[in-house]
Amino acid sequence: MPLPKNFHGVVPPVVTPLTSDHKVDYPSFTRVLEHLIAGGVHGLFVLGSTSEVIFHDEATRRAILDHAAKVNNGRVPLLAGVIDPTTDRVIGHCKAAKAAGADAVVVTAPFYTRTNQAETVDHFRYVKDGSELPVVAYDIPVCVHIKLDRSSINTLAREGAIVGVKDSSGDEGNFRYLVSDLADRPEIFLMTGAELTVDGVLLGGAHGVVPGLGNVDPHGYVRLYDAARKGDWATAAKEQKRLCDLFEIIRCGAARTSAGSTGVGGFKTAMKRLGIIETNVMARPQRTLNDEEARGVEAVLKRVGLV
Amino acid sequence: MPLPKNFHGVVPPVVTPLTSDHKVDYPSFTRVLEHLIAGGVHGLFVLGSTSEVIFHDEATRRAILDHAAKVNNGRVPLLAGVIDPTTDRVIGHCKAAKAAGADAVVVTAPFYTRTNQAETVDHFRYVKDGSELPVVAYDIPVCVHIKLDRSSINTLAREGAIVGVKDSSGDEGNFRYLVSDLADRPEIFLMTGAELTVDGVLLGGAHGVVPGLGNVDPHGYVRLYDAARKGDWATAAKEQKRLCDLFEIIRCGAARTSAGSTGVGGFKTAMKRLGIIETNVMARPQRTLNDEEARGVEAVLKRVGLV
Amino acid sequence: MPLPKNFHGVVPPVVTPLTSDHKVDYPSFTRVLEHLIAGGVHGLFVLGSTSEVIFHDEATRRAILDHAAKVNNGRVPLLAGVIDPTTDRVIGHCKAAKAAGADAVVVTAPFYTRTNQAETVDHFRYVKDGSELPVVAYDIPVCVHIKLDRSSINTLAREGAIVGVKDSSGDEGNFRYLVSDLADRPEIFLMTGAELTVDGVLLGGAHGVVPGLGNVDPHGYVRLYDAARKGDWATAAKEQKRLCDLFEIIRCGAARTSAGSTGVGGFKTAMKRLGIIETNVMARPQRTLNDEEARGVEAVLKRVGLV
Amino acid sequence: MPLPKNFHGVVPPVVTPLTSDHKVDYPSFTRVLEHLIAGGVHGLFVLGSTSEVIFHDEATRRAILDHAAKVNNGRVPLLAGVIDPTTDRVIGHCKAAKAAGADAVVVTAPFYTRTNQAETVDHFRYVKDGSELPVVAYDIPVCVHIKLDRSSINTLAREGAIVGVKDSSGDEGNFRYLVSDLADRPEIFLMTGAELTVDGVLLGGAHGVVPGLGNVDPHGYVRLYDAARKGDWATAAKEQKRLCDLFEIIRCGAARTSAGSTGVGGFKTAMKRLGIIETNVMARPQRTLNDEEARGVEAVLKRVGLV
Repeated sequence: MPLPKNFHGVVPPVVTPLTSDHKVDYPSFTRVLEHLIAGGVHGLFVLGSTSEVIFHDEATRRAILDHAAKVNNGRVPLLAGVIDPTTDRVIGHCKAAKAAGADAVVVTAPFYTRTNQAETVDHFRYVKDGSELPVVAYDIPVCVHIKLDRSSINTLAREGAIVGVKDSSGDEGNFRYLVSDLADRPEIFLMTGAELTVDGVLLGGAHGVVPGLGNVDPHGYVRLYDAARKGDWATAAKEQKRLCDLFEIIRCGAARTSAGSTGVGGFKTAMKRLGIIETNVMARPQRTLNDEEARGVEAVLKRVGLV
Repeated sequence: MPLPKNFHGVVPPVVTPLTSDHKVDYPSFTRVLEHLIAGGVHGLFVLGSTSEVIFHDEATRRAILDHAAKVNNGRVPLLAGVIDPTTDRVIGHCKAAKAAGADAVVVTAPFYTRTNQAETVDHFRYVKDGSELPVVAYDIPVCVHIKLDRSSINTLAREGAIVGVKDSSGDEGNFRYLVSDLADRPEIFLMTGAELTVDGVLLGGAHGVVPGLGNVDPHGYVRLYDAARKGDWATAAKEQKRLCDLFEIIRCGAARTSAGSTGVGGFKTAMKRLGIIETNVMARPQRTLNDEEARGVEAVLKRVGLV
Repeated sequence: MPLPKNFHGVVPPVVTPLTSDHKVDYPSFTRVLEHLIAGGVHGLFVLGSTSEVIFHDEATRRAILDHAAKVNNGRVPLLAGVIDPTTDRVIGHCKAAKAAGADAVVVTAPFYTRTNQAETVDHFRYVKDGSELPVVAYDIPVCVHIKLDRSSINTLAREGAIVGVKDSSGDEGNFRYLVSDLADRPEIFLMTGAELTVDGVLLGGAHGVVPGLGNVDPHGYVRLYDAARKGDWATAAKEQKRLCDLFEIIRCGAARTSAGSTGVGGFKTAMKRLGIIETNVMARPQRTLNDEEARGVEAVLKRVGLV
Repeated sequence: MPLPKNFHGVVPPVVTPLTSDHKVDYPSFTRVLEHLIAGGVHGLFVLGSTSEVIFHDEATRRAILDHAAKVNNGRVPLLAGVIDPTTDRVIGHCKAAKAAGADAVVVTAPFYTRTNQAETVDHFRYVKDGSELPVVAYDIPVCVHIKLDRSSINTLAREGAIVGVKDSSGDEGNFRYLVSDLADRPEIFLMTGAELTVDGVLLGGAHGVVPGLGNVDPHGYVRLYDAARKGDWATAAKEQKRLCDLFEIIRCGAARTSAGSTGVGGFKTAMKRLGIIETNVMARPQRTLNDEEARGVEAVLKRVGLV
């Protein structure tokens, strides 16, 4: 389905399950997608950071996307991450995403190379020109080491180069200004990548949320979102509190693994324990959570009542 | 007055007005303090970053504090910043704060020196032992270049080394955990230094806010806070939106001055225009906003209806 | 030719010339390679950062490497950059490098993803196991945002996972320790990526240098290196001074472009002026130096006597 | 003695020994000063970072300086660090330094506050105007979190606002340009704060070195410097190698303490073992090296033949 005019809601970045020999585990992947759609999510973001997109080569990315499109079968909008270091390589991924049937592409600033803000704006323009799909800007300085300026986002949105933003910058004051700046352009959707402060960000006018943790508990984020839409902020905050408690799963591997491994690894370990996926294996060279760390994850799941 | 058991609310870091030859302008300072108390604030934080504390030597700090204590005359709790690079120098300031009649001291991590997290925890313990006043931890990594860890705050709070936190780290997810971690210790107050996301932070359970912008518009923050306390989140968000619009005053000098100068300089320029203080002079080597920049500030004030 | 046991000397990261429509300009590329070999370099490093490797997709990289191997025809060792964000993608490039006839591969730490030091060490081990070519570790934190620790380098070198290091970290004190630590393993070559302090680094025991500026003036670096090998440090320092003066070409585009664009763009502009390549076009979204900036480059070339 | 026109050589930042109750240990301090002068140093830099200046209040700083001036008694130039966060506080320290008999003051950029480059240049100008002593710029971004730009240094040197630079930025390429830029102004001395690459920096034209490690082994740095002045670079490099081996003392406390504590703590522990000072106590909240760590320091001293 094409991206609706007022796209909004809960759009999880979909975990990519792996087999023990580091191949994509498609039966598990099908279950993840069905679990999310059954959870009431408003869209699917495949091949995002949480999907370990950066570990997958072109052929594997295409297979993941084909599979997701087939399983989804138009039930919800399908956003495809096209994340690679530089412009023309991103445009290559955009073409594959179009062919696979995605409804929009999600694009970061260049990385490894050190482009400045003006070159980064040009990057989005070139990608827009080279892509047949709507472009969503993904602001994730912790990975690409440049922040998309408020003025850059405004320029790109008003030019028609982007149709939305996923803000994983953690700068919620700045995000608030984006909401305000683009209040006259409701067709530009502004979603946060935060997991822990979604109630507050929605109170501030955000159109949705792209929570990695939504892989583990989509119902929770949908409840939070629905309460917020109704203006029932006390319920939203209560649900947020529960999700913060659940998010502690990402700390279980922190002593031995990296920020990336313990985060997505925590999600995968929880999803394995919940019977959604077969293994909690992480793409190389990331470390997979071990049995002791998995018991930590299980303890958190028990504490919040998910097992 | 001693810090009440459940200290909460709006506690602005009080601007220190200067004369054109860089002395403290005490008549203006009196007006600032009266303006804030009349605005309904719940406490005064003198000698904070917004007060340009770091520019003032020991004698001047003492005079500022004496003046504030005399003007306040016990009407609201008086918190004193004791901000300097290292432990024993901070303890020296604590003694002066006690003598001047402050109700609590506000302490950052060490800076210039590169202490680790464990040494930073020790720093707060030593200050607590060397001070006769309750200690508030001030988490401001943008100035001191170390973040107070969640576990450090928890340790210090449960040991009784600190009675509260001012969180200017911008990490609102982490702050949410502090609220949750210390829910059984309501005597530990947790306030945010954010100006732009106060509605959301209060929704998440914060006990108050320490907004530099409160110098310009204390009534606005008090209205925001009161609405939040009543659970009227729509009104809180609307007020927050207005304060975000007002906060644009801090950008008027950004092209020519530094982050510090354009921020506090924006506040001072607005306060001068509002007739609260005589000059917008900044402490050296910071640049003072010029006439053109001041017209930018005035335009913002008009837009939000303050002039 | 296989990498010799005591590989050393001047090994420039070879610029990839582009046509005005952003394709590889192979006739120009041939001239660059001949220019370098004629300049007396001891090896060629193709597909490095200076080669804009990160802008090229798999097919283009393979074509570049095939062309370089054919032109070089075994005259000097050929090192191939296999730079991409994650382990298995790097291994894919290693296979292509082997097929193209490269003599070694040059590997960075993972990027975009946030692996820790232990996972980074594993990354090099996995690449070694998956590659049929010797692995050179490329330490470039300014691009990948992690530094290869002294202990990591030591571990990898002693395990046989790496045969050399290109150090572009700028931490020359640490590099000095690597030289000392591995003094008993002269088969491990340690080269600096510095352009400006090569005399000092060679005095400290480095085995060679990988200078981007060597594309413009290979003879200069070879003279510097030869003087150093003879212990004629005064001559080495004098040549270094001249090369520092030449390196000012990288500042000519700094006001309008990014660090990457003005650096490699400065090299390309100089090489165009010297008649080695046809255009100074940069890969998108980087900006190409304009005519005024090119006149700045020309002025520097005149000052040092290259035109 | 006034700073000579062509000030150069080895100018250690002098360690401040403490008693077990954290007071300055003046008898030990006398021995440190005599040890350095006997070692042949060309000047003394009292109240630098290595001196733990940032831990000492105004009265203590004055006492330290008075003592150093008295012991030195004009034998070598005496430079006084006047390190504090902001302009007018620094000027206050300058007056005390003048009164105590120092020959020059050493000034960093402002810290805690976030001044920009232009304001930082103004800071040095204001300090120059407010001080009766020559001003040395101390570039130490690891502590103050701003780098003094090449253009700022050039501007200040040519205006007469500074008479020299201590470069602890680690950016040796940039430092090389300073040497070149100011080659026509030999009265501006340019010294490095590096300990590990002094031979190379001197080869590049530096006028001297300000090595913390010089407290432990002044003779070594003087030998290195003398060899370099004679153009005997092989001897300089060999001595540098030995000093790098000695510098490993700063790692002995790294697992438990911070960068600052293990560095100066390593020096103090070595100096205690060598009988120069009574204790290795560090100013609070830094941790003092424990017995096991001290044995690590002793092992290094044995390895290089100092005990």
